[in-house]
Amino acid sequence: MSEKITPTVHWLRQSGRTAVCFLDQTLLPQQERLVECRDIGTLSAAIERLQIRGAPALGVAGAYGVALAAWNCDAMRVDQLVGEVREAAERLRRTRPTAINLGWAIDRMLATGLERLNDMQAIRERLLAEAEAILAEDLEMGRKMAQAGAPLVAEGANLITHCHTGPLATGGYGTALGVLLAAHRAGKRIHVWVDETRPLLQGARLTCYDLARAGVPHTLIADNMAGYVMSLGRVDAAFVGADRIAANGDVANKVGTYSLACLCRRHAVPFYVVAPSSSVDLRVKSRAEIPIEERPADEGRGVRGTPVAPAEVEVFNPAFDVTPADLVTAIVTEKGIHRPPYEESLAGLAEEKA
Amino acid sequence: MSEKITPTVHWLRQSGRTAVCFLDQTLLPQQERLVECRDIGTLSAAIERLQIRGAPALGVAGAYGVALAAWNCDAMRVDQLVGEVREAAERLRRTRPTAINLGWAIDRMLATGLERLNDMQAIRERLLAEAEAILAEDLEMGRKMAQAGAPLVAEGANLITHCHTGPLATGGYGTALGVLLAAHRAGKRIHVWVDETRPLLQGARLTCYDLARAGVPHTLIADNMAGYVMSLGRVDAAFVGADRIAANGDVANKVGTYSLACLCRRHAVPFYVVAPSSSVDLRVKSRAEIPIEERPADEGRGVRGTPVAPAEVEVFNPAFDVTPADLVTAIVTEKGIHRPPYEESLAGLAEEKA
Repeated sequence: MSEKITPTVHWLRQSGRTAVCFLDQTLLPQQERLVECRDIGTLSAAIERLQIRGAPALGVAGAYGVALAAWNCDAMRVDQLVGEVREAAERLRRTRPTAINLGWAIDRMLATGLERLNDMQAIRERLLAEAEAILAEDLEMGRKMAQAGAPLVAEGANLITHCHTGPLATGGYGTALGVLLAAHRAGKRIHVWVDETRPLLQGARLTCYDLARAGVPHTLIADNMAGYVMSLGRVDAAFVGADRIAANGDVANKVGTYSLACLCRRHAVPFYVVAPSSSVDLRVKSRAEIPIEERPADEGRGVRGTPVAPAEVEVFNPAFDVTPADLVTAIVTEKGIHRPPYEESLAGLAEEKA
Repeated sequence: MSEKITPTVHWLRQSGRTAVCFLDQTLLPQQERLVECRDIGTLSAAIERLQIRGAPALGVAGAYGVALAAWNCDAMRVDQLVGEVREAAERLRRTRPTAINLGWAIDRMLATGLERLNDMQAIRERLLAEAEAILAEDLEMGRKMAQAGAPLVAEGANLITHCHTGPLATGGYGTALGVLLAAHRAGKRIHVWVDETRPLLQGARLTCYDLARAGVPHTLIADNMAGYVMSLGRVDAAFVGADRIAANGDVANKVGTYSLACLCRRHAVPFYVVAPSSSVDLRVKSRAEIPIEERPADEGRGVRGTPVAPAEVEVFNPAFDVTPADLVTAIVTEKGIHRPPYEESLAGLAEEKA
């Protein structure tokens, strides 16, 4: 393919400034504002505030963040610099504990053998090169996922998606939405139902933005309408991303994914999960071992600063839920389409990685 | 029972002013502002804007509206007054075509035999008395529904509800939420999960308001979290209202009710519908005959004036969906608990009415 893709994360080095930059996704689609992170504190806060989100994008941002720690460090000795890089890596790792790509990218940055380099500039160049490699591989993975998933998108299909898995959620290609965007570019006429995805509305804000930019016909719905739309016979397949996939095929993803999967099962709608193989964590046997983050209660009490509920109301606000493997029709990675039993079809990923 | 209940709709007559008044439900819980309707145009607009909503409350408001048309009419002859009352009744009827209680209350107001009265003041008094009777019967119906539904609420139960069916949605007692509030007043320890209910957030705004005022422990969730909460084993039963119930037990209610019912079925959670018998429309055989209103697209593009999606995005915004009878564990009316097969258990309502 010869598609031109804009990377989500930019490494900025000009007139002595080094920074990791990306669009503030909490302001889209109303404002396109660039966040410029010159230190780990700013980057960590940006990740915690979801100014950048999506598991693969977090991997790329985390990798550039580790490089940034080396570039903006004024240590005088190699061991000091390595110490600061390690400290920054752990600070970044704590920002989103469920997002396996973040930890994976950070581990990979720390495994570049920096202790063996005895020159600070060499360490900096080595880390930057590794972050750039992670980005390039992510873009290539997006292309491969779209190729692998292409047969699952029929001409004329009505598809539904939850949360945001488009270009902005990844290095720049997209996972689940990447498959749909590629199908559109390949000339298939498709229509996408977009779950708005409360509480942070990533579907309404970001998926609609990505689909509109690409010219794909789409319709926004409230999350609670998915069942009704299916009952009208107007959904042919669901495509969602994953933050983490267990060895048995259980999928942790944005809260609401599980409800959508239950509705798909009742209406005999195929439910597809698209994620890079780095989201598959074979050390985790099943959903019982996946930790679920809870996010601040105020997200449930309002919408972008507008209060909607009594100020003191008790709120339950899990960031993710887990969809059991038996509701998942197939999992698409850059290696191909994996079908049940997942213990077998996903196990191959470990062998290929090893 | 000796409960003191505040009516939702007030008839105001002071220093020559006659008006139908109620709290503006679109501003709750942040503001408690009274809407004062002195003409049918204002009242119709208030109903269309959902400043007052909930099927039984609409019946009461519609009845008072018909009376208002007679009180504020400056016709010189009885036939002119009757003509204006009929015109007002039809204007009110068109505001919310799916809400059967509204049409039912208006029909009842028009069946008071006003043509046979040859005195304008007698017509006015007759219509006002009928509206007051409709309100009193609604409050009594609320009490009876709560009594009928009481055995379905277990001590210590975790319950879930969708949209708003509390005092503000009715004459002043509540339907589904009325059952839960009465259980709490009777000393049962219960906890209620509240679906926020996009797009207009009646759950977050009104159900939380009613539950907080009554001191019932409750937790707000986004609609898409209901499945996850059930998967944790933390929901014992669902209670929802109904805008219209067909003879076979199919239930039209706020959009999202159907998704919730599907999730209840998957998790073996009983799904109860609570509504006055006036919501049962035996002329409608099944869901195929129930018209579904669509509401303005802008409701889906934003939240109380805050935009959340691209300004031009296509939106699907049905006001209701229909839950097929096979997902409904039981229907509670003021006459008792109706169980499947509903063709039989609901048919009794017609006999009693006749």
